[in-house]
Amino acid sequence: MSSTAATVAGTIAAMGRRARAAAVVLARTDPAQTAAALTAAAAAIRADTDAILVANAEDMARATAAGLSAALLDRLRLDRDRIEGIARGVEAVAALPSPLGALIDESTRPNGLVLQRVRVPIGVIGIIYESRPNVTADAGALCLRSGNAVILRGGSDSTASSAAIHRAMVSGLAATGLPSDAIQIVPTPDRAAVGAMLAGADGTIALIVPRGGKGLVARVQTEARVPVLAHLDGINHVYVDTAADPDRAQAIVVNAKLRRTGICGAMETLLIDRAYSDPAPLLAALIDGGCALRGDAAARAIDPRIAPAEAADWDTEYLDALCTVGIVDGIDGALAHIAAHGSGHTEAIVTEDAATAERFLAEVDSAIVMVNASTQFADGGEFGLGAEIGIATGRLHARGPVALEGLTTYKWLVRGTGQTRP
Amino acid sequence: MSSTAATVAGTIAAMGRRARAAAVVLARTDPAQTAAALTAAAAAIRADTDAILVANAEDMARATAAGLSAALLDRLRLDRDRIEGIARGVEAVAALPSPLGALIDESTRPNGLVLQRVRVPIGVIGIIYESRPNVTADAGALCLRSGNAVILRGGSDSTASSAAIHRAMVSGLAATGLPSDAIQIVPTPDRAAVGAMLAGADGTIALIVPRGGKGLVARVQTEARVPVLAHLDGINHVYVDTAADPDRAQAIVVNAKLRRTGICGAMETLLIDRAYSDPAPLLAALIDGGCALRGDAAARAIDPRIAPAEAADWDTEYLDALCTVGIVDGIDGALAHIAAHGSGHTEAIVTEDAATAERFLAEVDSAIVMVNASTQFADGGEFGLGAEIGIATGRLHARGPVALEGLTTYKWLVRGTGQTRP
Repeated sequence: MSSTAATVAGTIAAMGRRARAAAVVLARTDPAQTAAALTAAAAAIRADTDAILVANAEDMARATAAGLSAALLDRLRLDRDRIEGIARGVEAVAALPSPLGALIDESTRPNGLVLQRVRVPIGVIGIIYESRPNVTADAGALCLRSGNAVILRGGSDSTASSAAIHRAMVSGLAATGLPSDAIQIVPTPDRAAVGAMLAGADGTIALIVPRGGKGLVARVQTEARVPVLAHLDGINHVYVDTAADPDRAQAIVVNAKLRRTGICGAMETLLIDRAYSDPAPLLAALIDGGCALRGDAAARAIDPRIAPAEAADWDTEYLDALCTVGIVDGIDGALAHIAAHGSGHTEAIVTEDAATAERFLAEVDSAIVMVNASTQFADGGEFGLGAEIGIATGRLHARGPVALEGLTTYKWLVRGTGQTRP
Repeated sequence: MSSTAATVAGTIAAMGRRARAAAVVLARTDPAQTAAALTAAAAAIRADTDAILVANAEDMARATAAGLSAALLDRLRLDRDRIEGIARGVEAVAALPSPLGALIDESTRPNGLVLQRVRVPIGVIGIIYESRPNVTADAGALCLRSGNAVILRGGSDSTASSAAIHRAMVSGLAATGLPSDAIQIVPTPDRAAVGAMLAGADGTIALIVPRGGKGLVARVQTEARVPVLAHLDGINHVYVDTAADPDRAQAIVVNAKLRRTGICGAMETLLIDRAYSDPAPLLAALIDGGCALRGDAAARAIDPRIAPAEAADWDTEYLDALCTVGIVDGIDGALAHIAAHGSGHTEAIVTEDAATAERFLAEVDSAIVMVNASTQFADGGEFGLGAEIGIATGRLHARGPVALEGLTTYKWLVRGTGQTRP
């Protein structure tokens, strides 16, 4: 470790220790108080709109001079509407029911011991994100509402904007007597700060959530020495079964691919049962909707506008108006293809055959498995969670959309009357 | 990586891929079939008793020649009773209710989508253990019953015994048509095998559970690149409050320390409220029970037989008839001491004051928090889980005693009628 990296690691460890101390306070805090803090933070965001815009203008000027792409500049850019949206998002999290203290289960043992499992905060969560400054408020709010202290590390492009939003969040904490260390932001743009967080900040960070593109998520997943909630890819499949209703199939497939092509719930591969009666209009609907298709020989025989798929296409998340199409032999073929090429995010079947649908639900090993619905519903808000910190494709702790409950753990409470173990 | 390590890594990765294939089959298997396989495995263990004893005699001879300690030799040793106990343990796991398919929650969205979260297996689990050959059956049974494939890596001392028990487990799989790759054992004693498992066996192992001493657990926690369920220490505290019933306090404290000193749920530090009326008999009961005490000045003033505690004693898991004793200022002092020195395993309060008890339950941040009960109850069997793969002090996925449920994850099932996202 270089001396600079060591200094940065020391800074992050000190932040971690302050966060642990704040987490101890939060664990004892009435959830009504975190809601009040977030309501106050939202008000502060609104009151600070001008200051946030000034900070954002600084970031934008720097980013423009550095030649950032139009897409990145758009992610970075704030305006009055977006700031109002951020404030409303924080209020929405304040209004979510607290997951803390919820009784998971309870039992009484023959010896009279009463056991309960109750939800408690995880402790300290690290959030590593890129150019969207709104994550400062959004992730900060979700962590606080679930009783956790959070260390935020935003992208260097958005330093000033994120700092301005962070000041508003902290003023919400101060207004309600909560420790300001409950929501901290890493002050240094040094990349070593990310490394120090991924190493666990000297044992203080219990969970890392990356929010950003594939490069960031891959780095986090590769380097982290603490648990990570994330998904690297959303290579989502829609399988149109021979028993699909053609109108439903077309509506779902077009929506799953084209409603928004850049979200992780978008369909990336369309699988069609070889026995499906009328695939041509389905493929035409995608092409007419502006989607380029790449397919296997059987698909190309149906529509010559389909380009040949390379081997890598079946394992690619395009996040674009581009889709791979394969013709498979029934549900067995679909299951085998998904097992070989899926990323464990979201898969859907379109079928009117209940037995086939249930088999797909049972045998597809993804975080989300759908019947007769668009994969674009893969979202915490659409799932009724009120928000989401992200979608996880790992197998432990939480899977699929993760919101407040996924940011908690539990402890066992045991109430006795003097029992000793024989 | 040396060429030998590379070869071993290749062997482990190949085992991992076979385990993944077996896990796909297990995920579709009726839980009645895993129960039948385990019942058949138990019968095979009984039928193979002589062969297991011969294998164990080999291991014992080698271990004795190598000069293993009496304690390690005792862990390694099998006899007819112990083998019968292993068979019964496997039958007990077979009889446990399957956690698979259980509905965690369900909701219907305004658009008519029906969402369910249901329990599914994790996939492939790696178990790394030491000289106790019974773990081969015990951990293998728990993983199989929860629908997971398992890769077992036993200690080099118990190679022959573990292999013999493993053969019986596999014959149970074969008797019921389940893939033999569902329970694999690493054939090489090479320590590089452990490293390859901790690295995830080429992405195939989703979870590692170490079963053994602190050295093993520390290595696994430090080196693992996949999630680990474990506890390193059980530095468990019993706090005797001023409002404790003296008889209960004495019974609980003596049981918590001395019933079995070598288990992870044993009390290691006794904290007594400075206002507690009669600490002398409590301390005398421990000393008279054969426990050596080390204490702070206030404790030593109560009983001169107490030796002075060094700073390190407060952070030591003795696993022996030895206990640290501290006098604290009420529950605030106890909470501060536990926060500074606890290992997050199990803490107990003895008090008749309900408000103090509830505060202890709420504010102690350990996997298990008890009121008026011995810490020696910290055990999956005592908690009604039927068995345990271990006790976890990490904060994610599962905490405290982990049995079948902790070896599962969930997926989201979404049933629609053609919904597309607006």
